[in-house]
Amino acid sequence: MTDLMQMGQAAQTAARQLSQLTAAAKNLALLKMATALEAATPEILEANAADLAAASALPAKFTDRLKLTPARVADMASGLRAVAALDDPTEKADKGWRTGAGLFIVQQRVPLGVVGMIYEARPNVTVDAAGLTLKSGNAVILRGGKEALHSNIALAKVLQQALHAAGLPAEALQVIADPSRALASQMMHLTDYIDVLIPRGGAGLIRAVVQEATVPVIETGAGNCHIYVDRAADLAMATAIVVNAKVQRPSVCNAAEKLLIHRAVAEAYLPVLAQELQRHGVALRGDAAACAIVPSMTPATAEDWDTEYNDLIMAVKVVDSEAVAIAHINAHNTKHSETIVTGDYAAGEQFLNQVDAACVYVNASTRFTDGQEFGFGAEIGISTQKLHARGPMGLSALTTTKYQIRGAGQIRE
Amino acid sequence: MTDLMQMGQAAQTAARQLSQLTAAAKNLALLKMATALEAATPEILEANAADLAAASALPAKFTDRLKLTPARVADMASGLRAVAALDDPTEKADKGWRTGAGLFIVQQRVPLGVVGMIYEARPNVTVDAAGLTLKSGNAVILRGGKEALHSNIALAKVLQQALHAAGLPAEALQVIADPSRALASQMMHLTDYIDVLIPRGGAGLIRAVVQEATVPVIETGAGNCHIYVDRAADLAMATAIVVNAKVQRPSVCNAAEKLLIHRAVAEAYLPVLAQELQRHGVALRGDAAACAIVPSMTPATAEDWDTEYNDLIMAVKVVDSEAVAIAHINAHNTKHSETIVTGDYAAGEQFLNQVDAACVYVNASTRFTDGQEFGFGAEIGISTQKLHARGPMGLSALTTTKYQIRGAGQIRE
Repeated sequence: MTDLMQMGQAAQTAARQLSQLTAAAKNLALLKMATALEAATPEILEANAADLAAASALPAKFTDRLKLTPARVADMASGLRAVAALDDPTEKADKGWRTGAGLFIVQQRVPLGVVGMIYEARPNVTVDAAGLTLKSGNAVILRGGKEALHSNIALAKVLQQALHAAGLPAEALQVIADPSRALASQMMHLTDYIDVLIPRGGAGLIRAVVQEATVPVIETGAGNCHIYVDRAADLAMATAIVVNAKVQRPSVCNAAEKLLIHRAVAEAYLPVLAQELQRHGVALRGDAAACAIVPSMTPATAEDWDTEYNDLIMAVKVVDSEAVAIAHINAHNTKHSETIVTGDYAAGEQFLNQVDAACVYVNASTRFTDGQEFGFGAEIGISTQKLHARGPMGLSALTTTKYQIRGAGQIRE
Repeated sequence: MTDLMQMGQAAQTAARQLSQLTAAAKNLALLKMATALEAATPEILEANAADLAAASALPAKFTDRLKLTPARVADMASGLRAVAALDDPTEKADKGWRTGAGLFIVQQRVPLGVVGMIYEARPNVTVDAAGLTLKSGNAVILRGGKEALHSNIALAKVLQQALHAAGLPAEALQVIADPSRALASQMMHLTDYIDVLIPRGGAGLIRAVVQEATVPVIETGAGNCHIYVDRAADLAMATAIVVNAKVQRPSVCNAAEKLLIHRAVAEAYLPVLAQELQRHGVALRGDAAACAIVPSMTPATAEDWDTEYNDLIMAVKVVDSEAVAIAHINAHNTKHSETIVTGDYAAGEQFLNQVDAACVYVNASTRFTDGQEFGFGAEIGISTQKLHARGPMGLSALTTTKYQIRGAGQIRE
């Protein structure tokens, strides 16, 4: 029987040890984990085959993400080596200053402690999460989708052996072997032992965790992203950006879902842009004005403006001014990524200042909202909340700070 | 009837306006609010008298915090003027850099949006919260203790008139006029309109909000703080620090509640320290070893180690090593403030690195954990959580960031 409380205690003890390690010790363990994964490829694929056999009735899209191959195991190992090469966020202090009373205060970066991850049946997330949490000095408790259970147990076993071989506590990484809903629920309330929960997966999974958990959650993912083509846009640039943001990878959260276009350019430009999007297989849904200009569009419903399609679909609205575009975005967006295309300086600045979102762009594709593109090396996810972290999260999102205060006997007057 | 949804919408609209204001415009409003409070002292005291009359059966400790006087109204006005003089956190950017794709990214500080405050029957918190949230560009919805309702409504009316006179939206500051529990509960779930909830008050209030709210909460306050007197301590310094931390203001969260003392110095030093504490009226509770050395101590129970007394009581434990002291602290503290007194360099560093708390001290009183002492000017509270903000929170804890990204037509390859 899985005893979550016991797992939590073991994770907390391991986290205390991890918090004291040098970057070199953690990097050594990450490299050993990578080598161990490659060496254990046959066992991992065998466990994965059992999962795949049990999931054979499920759609190909689902089993495709569940399936491991020698190349995918090698990719996981490369991922761990890449994390080893990153800077250790806990080696940095944010600030240091001396107070009026003569105390010297350092705001030091420290690990969060124990991270809980809840995710779908994707074994690669198991390895990814193990690497990122270890590098940032945290222990992790993993609860993946039940269809990947054999794969996850096999991966965890290999990674734990490597941790042990590197002289680190194996309990730094634990997989919940009981896939029941009751245990996931218990995990979401384990406030004494888990410092933060990070759900990774579809909107439904994330919403369920946010609503149920009493452990603090870092929310990631939903993206109803807009592109506003201003009256002063360079229209060739607008076409390139809209097509890239919609078409290059429509299933991801930073893909654009909505197009707002200024009435002054709609009549002449929308037919050209629509044709280009349709040529790329995009189904267009328009408001009345857009449909009047491009009759091949389907009329959009009220629901469309709040929907993240994650698909080759785009809804189009004609607006009378930038102010209307900004108000529409602030009313319907998921606070993820928004772009204006304009050659007008004031229009760009107004958009940057008034749109409420994690990432606001002038003249660039929303697809750049990404930890790698931002230069963070690794990405934990993209936060759409306002507390703790907002936008693409690098390793430092898995840390907090501690004030270390050095005195000489000061007492308060 | 109070319509919270309508209040939330109005607050959100006001917050959008506030987020675009210059510091000068906000400061002008703060100064007008201060002047208006002073001018309206008679009306405010009249409303307060009604609250006091209804609360006459309540304990003096309670009514003392409820009671307003001309001097206390003047203090509130001074507080607003002090906030006007502080730096505006939203005028700063945290970072700026150019990416590989040539995008220029600025991580700009921006207001959180709408802040909800839930607090006890202390009218000064109404004005304090109004000032801090306005300065940081946020709208605020206030739900104070029902015994202060007339006072809060009178204060809000004066402050709203001043906001209006300064050309700002009066809905930047709203008081919930219905003191029912049901409405407080509704407020804790108003995720569409309130960006963060800050409970201020006793441990019970804070726990209740943390457990019920689905709106993100910034947790403040509980402090089971320890002082560890190491074998290498300067004992005169230790006495000064322990007495200061325990006695100077025992009711506050950064007062020390527990004393750990190394066995090597306990026999000779504990009687001296105990006598000094007892001379200041402190009731001591000891573990077996401490009671054996100082028989006038009461034996401590298991519960004592987890209790925040907020009173002239201190529990004392004799430990065999610093490692034992650190393990005890990490098992029982509330992650607030912890001090070691030592002359040993390695002992001090070990304590700073291994104790898990917002503020960890060497050779200083825990009483310095305070926004003013840290040099933050204002203090929203002291966070004992790990996400978003940890330790004393200045105005920047009421902000988040937004990535503003300037491009030249970049699309993702």
